[in-house]
Amino acid sequence: MLFTDAVVAIAVTLLVLPLVEVVTESKTEGLTAVEVITEHRPQIFTFLLSFVVIVRFWLVHHRVFEHVRRYNTRLIQLNLGWLLLIVILPFPTEIIGSFETSRFTSGLYIGTILVLSLCQSGLVLMIRRHPDLEDPDNPVTRGELINSIVTAGLFGLAFVLAALVPNVGFYALFLLFLTPVISRPLAKRTA
Amino acid sequence: MLFTDAVVAIAVTLLVLPLVEVVTESKTEGLTAVEVITEHRPQIFTFLLSFVVIVRFWLVHHRVFEHVRRYNTRLIQLNLGWLLLIVILPFPTEIIGSFETSRFTSGLYIGTILVLSLCQSGLVLMIRRHPDLEDPDNPVTRGELINSIVTAGLFGLAFVLAALVPNVGFYALFLLFLTPVISRPLAKRTA
Amino acid sequence: MLFTDAVVAIAVTLLVLPLVEVVTESKTEGLTAVEVITEHRPQIFTFLLSFVVIVRFWLVHHRVFEHVRRYNTRLIQLNLGWLLLIVILPFPTEIIGSFETSRFTSGLYIGTILVLSLCQSGLVLMIRRHPDLEDPDNPVTRGELINSIVTAGLFGLAFVLAALVPNVGFYALFLLFLTPVISRPLAKRTA
Amino acid sequence: MLFTDAVVAIAVTLLVLPLVEVVTESKTEGLTAVEVITEHRPQIFTFLLSFVVIVRFWLVHHRVFEHVRRYNTRLIQLNLGWLLLIVILPFPTEIIGSFETSRFTSGLYIGTILVLSLCQSGLVLMIRRHPDLEDPDNPVTRGELINSIVTAGLFGLAFVLAALVPNVGFYALFLLFLTPVISRPLAKRTA
Repeated sequence: MLFTDAVVAIAVTLLVLPLVEVVTESKTEGLTAVEVITEHRPQIFTFLLSFVVIVRFWLVHHRVFEHVRRYNTRLIQLNLGWLLLIVILPFPTEIIGSFETSRFTSGLYIGTILVLSLCQSGLVLMIRRHPDLEDPDNPVTRGELINSIVTAGLFGLAFVLAALVPNVGFYALFLLFLTPVISRPLAKRTA
Repeated sequence: MLFTDAVVAIAVTLLVLPLVEVVTESKTEGLTAVEVITEHRPQIFTFLLSFVVIVRFWLVHHRVFEHVRRYNTRLIQLNLGWLLLIVILPFPTEIIGSFETSRFTSGLYIGTILVLSLCQSGLVLMIRRHPDLEDPDNPVTRGELINSIVTAGLFGLAFVLAALVPNVGFYALFLLFLTPVISRPLAKRTA
Repeated sequence: MLFTDAVVAIAVTLLVLPLVEVVTESKTEGLTAVEVITEHRPQIFTFLLSFVVIVRFWLVHHRVFEHVRRYNTRLIQLNLGWLLLIVILPFPTEIIGSFETSRFTSGLYIGTILVLSLCQSGLVLMIRRHPDLEDPDNPVTRGELINSIVTAGLFGLAFVLAALVPNVGFYALFLLFLTPVISRPLAKRTA
Repeated sequence: MLFTDAVVAIAVTLLVLPLVEVVTESKTEGLTAVEVITEHRPQIFTFLLSFVVIVRFWLVHHRVFEHVRRYNTRLIQLNLGWLLLIVILPFPTEIIGSFETSRFTSGLYIGTILVLSLCQSGLVLMIRRHPDLEDPDNPVTRGELINSIVTAGLFGLAFVLAALVPNVGFYALFLLFLTPVISRPLAKRTA
C-alpha cells in the first residue's frame, strides 16, 4: 500500500518539527546555542526513540503486507487504525519530551505503542486466517505470527510496569529486547 | 492519481501538528501532563473526526477512480477542487477545536465537508456521463452513484440543521449513518 | 519524476499551516470564531492564490515532462531550481498575507513566480533543443513552447507593473488571462 | 526505495517552515516587509544551504541505489541511518540560522553532514563488497567509490577546521569544491 508508506514517511519526518521550534523558543529565552542541545536532551532522546519505533513498526508491517494478494474492507479498516496510531504518535512523543517522566506520561506513550502493536498482530492474524487475502505462494510464517504476538505481549507488560511501578518509566521498553529470546524457542516448539 | 494519494496522506498526517503544539503551550501555561489531555479533549476529538472524514472520502474517491481509464482537463480540474477542500480541512478543524461549538463553527465545518461531498458526487457523475473517461469493462455502478448523491444530500441536511438550529452542532453528522438505509432501497428500486 | 510530484504535493498541502496557526493566535488575542475568518481574509486569499499558482505550474510541468524520454544532469539541475522555487513559495505567500500590499510585497511575490516561470520555459526549451532528451514519438509542440514563453513574458510585465506602479499590486496578475489571446495567434502564424 | 524518496521530498519541503514562521514573528515585532528579508538573511542563506545539501546527497544516493538488485537487513538499517540524518538536518539548520556562527554551531552543522556523508560512503562500500546486493550488469564504479570517500574525507577536514579554528565557520565547506580535483586523478591512477 503506497498510501501507508507515504503516511509513515511524513509522520517520521514531522517528528523533527518540535525540535526546530525548540530552537526559536530557546533564542527568545536567551539560551546559547550549546544550551539548546544540553537543555533539550529529553526532546532529542524522544525524537530518536519515536523515529526508531515508527521505522521498526513500518519494517515489520512492510514484510507482513508482502503476504497479501488482495485487500478487503476489514483489512483496510484495520490498517487505517494502524495508520491513525502512527499519525498520532508525535503527540505522546511531545508530551514525554516536554514533561517530567511519570507513570502517566510513560504509560501514555507505551500504551499508544501497545495499541499500535495490537493492530499489527491483528493484521498478521487476519491475513493468516483468510486464505482469500493471503498469497498462497508466500504465506505468513509461524515465526512471524509468534513474533508479532510476543512483541504485543511484551509491550503489554512494559505498559503495566510503566503505569504502575514508580520510577520505571521508559526503562520498561528494555523488555522488548527479550522478543527474540522468547519467540525463537516458541517458534521451534510449535513447528 | 498518485498526486491525489500523496496530498491526502500529507493532509491526514498534518492534522496532528496542532495537537503537538498544544503540548508546548500547555507547558508554558503551567498545566500538568494529565491536563494536556483533559483540557484539550475538543482538539483531540476534532483531530479524530477529521482523520475519519478525510480517510473515508479518500476511500470512496479511490474506488471511484478505478472506473476511470483516461483523464481530461475538466476531470483534473474538478479533482483539484476536491484536493483543495482536503488541503483546507485542517483550518475549519482547528476552528472547531479551539472555539466553543456554535452555529457558525459547526456550519463552517460541516459546510466545508458538504462542498467536498458535492465535488465527489460531481466526479462520479462526470465519469458516468463521459464514456471516453469511463472504463467500459468496469463502469460506475448505479449503487455508487446513488450512494454519492445520498451522502451529499445528508451532508446538506446536516449543514442546514447545524447552521440554523442552536445546540445541534456536530450531532447533525449522525445523519450520515442513514446513508445505507436510504441508498440501498433506492438502488434496488431503480435497478 | 516521482520526486517532483511528491515535493509539489507537500508544498501545496503545507500552505494551510499558516492558516491553522492563525486560529490559535486569534484565540489568544480574544477574537471570535467569525472574526478568525473576517480578520484574516488576506491570508485566506493568498492561500488560495498560491494553491492555484502551484497547481497550475505543476500541471504544465507534468505535461512538459511527458515529452522527455531520458534525463541528463543539466535537466535535473534546472528541475531542482524549479523545485526550489515551489518549495520557497510559501515564504512570499506568508509575507503578502501578513503585510499590507505594497510595491515591495507584490513585486516579491510576482517576482518569485516570474523566476519559476522562467525555469519552466527553460525546461521546455532545453527539452526541445536536445533530441537525446526529447521523446521522438511525442515531441514538444510549437504551441507549448510559445505558451511557456508568453506566460513568462506576461509574468515579467506583471512584475514590472506591480513593482513600479503604486496601487497595482496583485491586479497585475490579471494580465495572465491574456496568455491564450496572445499565444494562440502566434502559434498559428508560426505553424 | 520509494520510502527514501518520500522522506527526502518531505524533509526538503519542510525546510521552508521556519522561514514562514519568521514572517509572523517579524510582524508581531513591528518589522516592515522589507526588514523580514534584510533582518533574516542568515535564515534564508541556511535554508538555501540545506536545500542544496539534501538535494545533492539525494542525487548521489539515487545513483548509488541503481546498482542494487536486492536488499538485506543491514543495507536497510544503514539506509535508515542515512534517512535519520536527512530527517534531523532541519534542526542544526535552524540552530545555525538563529544563532551567531561559532565553532560550536558550524561544527554541529558540518558534523551532521559529515556523519551523513560517512553513511553514504558506507552504503557504497557495502553494495560493492556484497555481490548478492550489487547488480552484476551495473556494478558500483571505482570512480563512485573514490568520490564518496573523498567527499567524506573533505567533510571531515571541513568539520575539523570549523570546530577548531575560530572565524572559519561555513567557509570550511568551500573545501568540497576540491572533490573532483582530488578524486579524478585518484580514479585514474587506480584504474
